[in-house]
Formats: sequence, structure tokens, C-alpha cells
Amino acid sequence: MQSNSIEKKHLHFGWDNAITPVMAVAPGSVVEFDTLDAGGGQLNRNSTLEDVSKFDFDKVNPTFGPVFVEGAEPGDALKVTVMDLKLEGWGWTANIPGFGLLADRFDQPALHIWEFDPACTAPAEFKGGAKVPLKPFPGIMGNALPEAGCHSVVNPRKFGGNMDTRDMNVGTEILIPVGVPGALFSCGDGHAAQGDGEICGTAIEAPMAMTLKLDLVKGANLNFPQFTTTGPVSSHFDKAGYDVTMAMGEDLMECARNCVGDMVDKLAAEKGLAPVDAYMLCSVCADLRISEIVDMPNWIVSCYFPRIVFEL
Amino acid sequence: MQSNSIEKKHLHFGWDNAITPVMAVAPGSVVEFDTLDAGGGQLNRNSTLEDVSKFDFDKVNPTFGPVFVEGAEPGDALKVTVMDLKLEGWGWTANIPGFGLLADRFDQPALHIWEFDPACTAPAEFKGGAKVPLKPFPGIMGNALPEAGCHSVVNPRKFGGNMDTRDMNVGTEILIPVGVPGALFSCGDGHAAQGDGEICGTAIEAPMAMTLKLDLVKGANLNFPQFTTTGPVSSHFDKAGYDVTMAMGEDLMECARNCVGDMVDKLAAEKGLAPVDAYMLCSVCADLRISEIVDMPNWIVSCYFPRIVFEL
Repeated sequence: MQSNSIEKKHLHFGWDNAITPVMAVAPGSVVEFDTLDAGGGQLNRNSTLEDVSKFDFDKVNPTFGPVFVEGAEPGDALKVTVMDLKLEGWGWTANIPGFGLLADRFDQPALHIWEFDPACTAPAEFKGGAKVPLKPFPGIMGNALPEAGCHSVVNPRKFGGNMDTRDMNVGTEILIPVGVPGALFSCGDGHAAQGDGEICGTAIEAPMAMTLKLDLVKGANLNFPQFTTTGPVSSHFDKAGYDVTMAMGEDLMECARNCVGDMVDKLAAEKGLAPVDAYMLCSVCADLRISEIVDMPNWIVSCYFPRIVFEL
Repeated sequence: MQSNSIEKKHLHFGWDNAITPVMAVAPGSVVEFDTLDAGGGQLNRNSTLEDVSKFDFDKVNPTFGPVFVEGAEPGDALKVTVMDLKLEGWGWTANIPGFGLLADRFDQPALHIWEFDPACTAPAEFKGGAKVPLKPFPGIMGNALPEAGCHSVVNPRKFGGNMDTRDMNVGTEILIPVGVPGALFSCGDGHAAQGDGEICGTAIEAPMAMTLKLDLVKGANLNFPQFTTTGPVSSHFDKAGYDVTMAMGEDLMECARNCVGDMVDKLAAEKGLAPVDAYMLCSVCADLRISEIVDMPNWIVSCYFPRIVFEL
């Protein structure tokens, strides 16, 4: 059994193909990445709202690596299989001013520290009686860009990166286009739970040890990442059904904002949550779906809130 | 037991609050609507591609009603509970030139006639070995607009209409804003199966007898329709997991087009389907989800294709 360990000290900020790889591995190797949370360790179990206000954005979204995968060439896809994810039993969700789908409405910082079962078999308690089922995944998995220089880690691209896609759980296989020889793969940004969209801009952000298998698909020539799940993706959320708010209009982004705004108002009215808390709760468990995208000129985006969150 | 029947002859085209209601009912009444398919009866079990080319768009999307609900006033919501849906065991899916998410790519008519179990307990066979699990719903449920004149039935609005939202199955409660006294509710456009988005513009279009309970929530003051499901919404699709194509970019619509284009190409390559057949198959079972909408400036739309379709 090969032991390939990327440690917390092997962090970098942004994608830069000039960064020296920490190690080189053969295709099919399993690598363990011990990662800090998206705050880069600036928050902990005892953090307060003041700590969010003092957030140093230069330390946000550290990624861990890079790993050089032997034989990887541009045009190939790196096949990443999520083998195991270990959490520490705590995480955080914040509203960070200027960031998030409803940044105009929620312009003040907010923070919730979650304490939860590290095995993620029990739901995590929020405010107002909400309990959120957990299903962890790495928010960031990506390869270096072919373009020289340091590129922001915030936005995802053809080569993956900060994909924040909630269904990349244990068992999932993700194909990520390779941009440079050796791929130069890095990961990070552990999430203990998230809904489709990551509405407020943060999930349950959690330090996480990620065990990933790195393999190659030669000549895949993908336009963007693709992935395959081993089974249902919503069964942790869907048993009690959903409350759904809809919005119709000619712009999908405006529809998304409108249906989330209505869900926030609904949760605040029905559950007695502060609106910013309802907003953060949506981020960790509510899904944005495009219900209809063909009935010209009005499309529909819907916000699906899993009722089980208030029934556990 | 009150017998309230809206028959096939009680059809109208477009929303017009001057149309005389077929009947008036008290809140809480159950009404049966015997509806034609979205083609208004222009297609049948034996239709061919030529019939799609001759489609008369003036006869598309007939709606059935309207029903005057006593006591309904603007500001209220009509609460529609889907009680029962009866199908005839056949339906159609078409690519109609000029309509659909990838209208530029698929500019020629295409048609598939489906024969299926009227009880919808068995999946419906397509081409290339695909079998699509069925879960019927009314594509159109809506109230008349407050504005005078006849308004297109194609696009959904605050007052509902052609919502084409796949989770409005039996058991679902839908709240639809009331625009005029009496609501003037109509429905139609039965779908035997559809994915989120209705990608090619048509679902499994099917004549359907719809039994709906019409009730009122006074003073709901909703911005748009909302609904509540009784349980999981994807369990007919998700048991074998999903193959997912992603697209990243600054425009959600472009992302949607790109991830669907990649899924069409993937299905064509892997399953030997003609691209237009893969496109129509996606429309009836693949879901569009907004995976991430906060990582400026790139959002992600993903196309989820349920693997069970090729494993049944």
C-alpha cells in the first residue's frame, strides 16, 4: 500500500502551473489530502461574528497540492474517485458581505458554528429546531490552468476548481480536463453539507481529510468536468418531501434570486428564523432547480427546501 | 359526492378573463378535467413525422375550464391538490423547429410515439434500449390574468399556467395566486414524464383525466406559485445514480445549453442514439440543476441523466 500524503502545510492560493508539485504519482494512485477549511484556519469552534468581520480574504480557499500525475497530458481527463472523507465534527457557515446570491439584501456579516457527529450519521443542529442531514464532499477539486500566472481560486473553470457541487460525495467519479502535463491536481474546501447553488456563498465549511484516487482517461477531450454518482443524490434530504418556491421570468439569475428571497421570507415567517439565518440554512440544504427553460419568454427557477430539516 | 366535470369540449386557447366559466364551485370542491394533450388532438398513436411538420400552432396547448371558485379574490391563492391522474397509455415527444433549449442545433422536426402502461407502473420504452420511469403531472394549471384580452398560454406567469414542473404529481399541493374574482382556473397539457427543464420543449405529452381539489388560502399574497410535495421527487429516477455533465460560465442560459449539448453528445456516443433522439430523451428524464451560483463570475449548471434509464 503506497502512502501518499499531502499535509496542511502543502497549501497554495490560486491556480499557478509554476508551483512545484509536492509529489508525483502513477495513475491509479490513492492520495490523502489533509485540508484546512475554506477559511484557511481563520475560524474555529469558538469563533464569533467579530472574526468574520476581520476575515483576511488573502487566506481564503487554500488548496492542497499540487500532485503531478504521471502521463497526464492536455486533452486527457483526470479521473478522481472520492474514496473517503474524514471530518473533525465542526464547521461554520457565514454570510460574508458582498458575497452570495442575495448580497444586496444581506449586507451584514453573520456566522453559525456547527457541532456535529464526525461520522456524519446524525444531522447537524441549527437554530429554530432545524436539523440538517450531512453528506460531505470536497468543494474544490481541480487541475492547473495552461495559462501562466496565478488565477483566482474563487471561480470554477473547464479544469474544475471551486465547483462546490454537492453530489461529489464518497463513491463519485469525477472527470476533470487536464490543462498541463502532469495535471497538477489540488483540492480543498471541505463541505459537510450543501444544497444545489450554495446560495449564501458558504456551505458547512469544515476541515477535512480527503482520500482520493487519481487516475487518467487518455484523450477524453471534455469541454468541462463530468461526473457519475453511485446512487441517489437526494435521499438524505427528500424523505419528507419539499416546500418549493418558484419564480418566473426572462432571466434565470433574477428568477433564482426571487425564488430564494421568497423561501427566506417563508422560513422566517413560518419558523421564526431571522431572515439571515433562513438564508444561511437554505445554503446548506435547499436546492436550486431549473423547472422549465423552454416556455418562451419565461423560464422557472425553483428553490426546493427539504421538509425533513424541521421534522427530525 | 359532488360531480363536477369539465369535458374535452370545454377548451380555450390562451388566458382571457372574459371567457365565461363552465361552472362555479365552492372552495374545497373536487373537479374532474378530461383533457386533450398539448397538441390538441392533432397527433395520435399512429402519427408520423409529417404530422409534426403540419402542426397547426393555433391549436397547441388547449386549456380546460375555466372554473369559477366562489369567494376567490385577488391576493388570495388557489390551493390545488392533485388527487388523481388517469392516462390512456400513449403519448408523444417531438422536436418542434424553433422551440426548445437547443433550437439552433436541432432545426428539423422529430417525433417519438410512446406506448405505455396506463397505470404508469412500468417504464416506457424509447429507442436504443432506454426505458423511462413515468410520473405524470399536469403541465398547465393556472388562473386568469387580471389584464384584459387574450394572453399567450405558452409562458408561465405569477398566476401559474404552463409551468411544466415535473414534481406536481398526485399528492402535491400547489398555491397559485388569484388574479381576478373567482380565480377562473383552467388546466391541461398532461405529461407522463419529464425532467427538470423540459429540455427539448416537449415531455411525454399525453391526454389525461385530471382530478383536482380546488381550495382557497385567503390573503396569501404570494409573488409566484409555491408547492409542497408529499415525499421524494426523484426516487423514480435516482436508484442507479446519475451521469452528469457540467458547464461553467457567466450566463446561466449558456451554461444550460452547454451542459445539455455535452449530454446529448455523450448519449449519442455511448448509446448509439441519433443526437436528436438523445435530446428528446433528455427532455423526458434528465434534470437541469444549478450546482453553484455564487463563485463569481462563473456559475455552474449541470445536466443529470438518470442511469436507471439504461439499466431497466
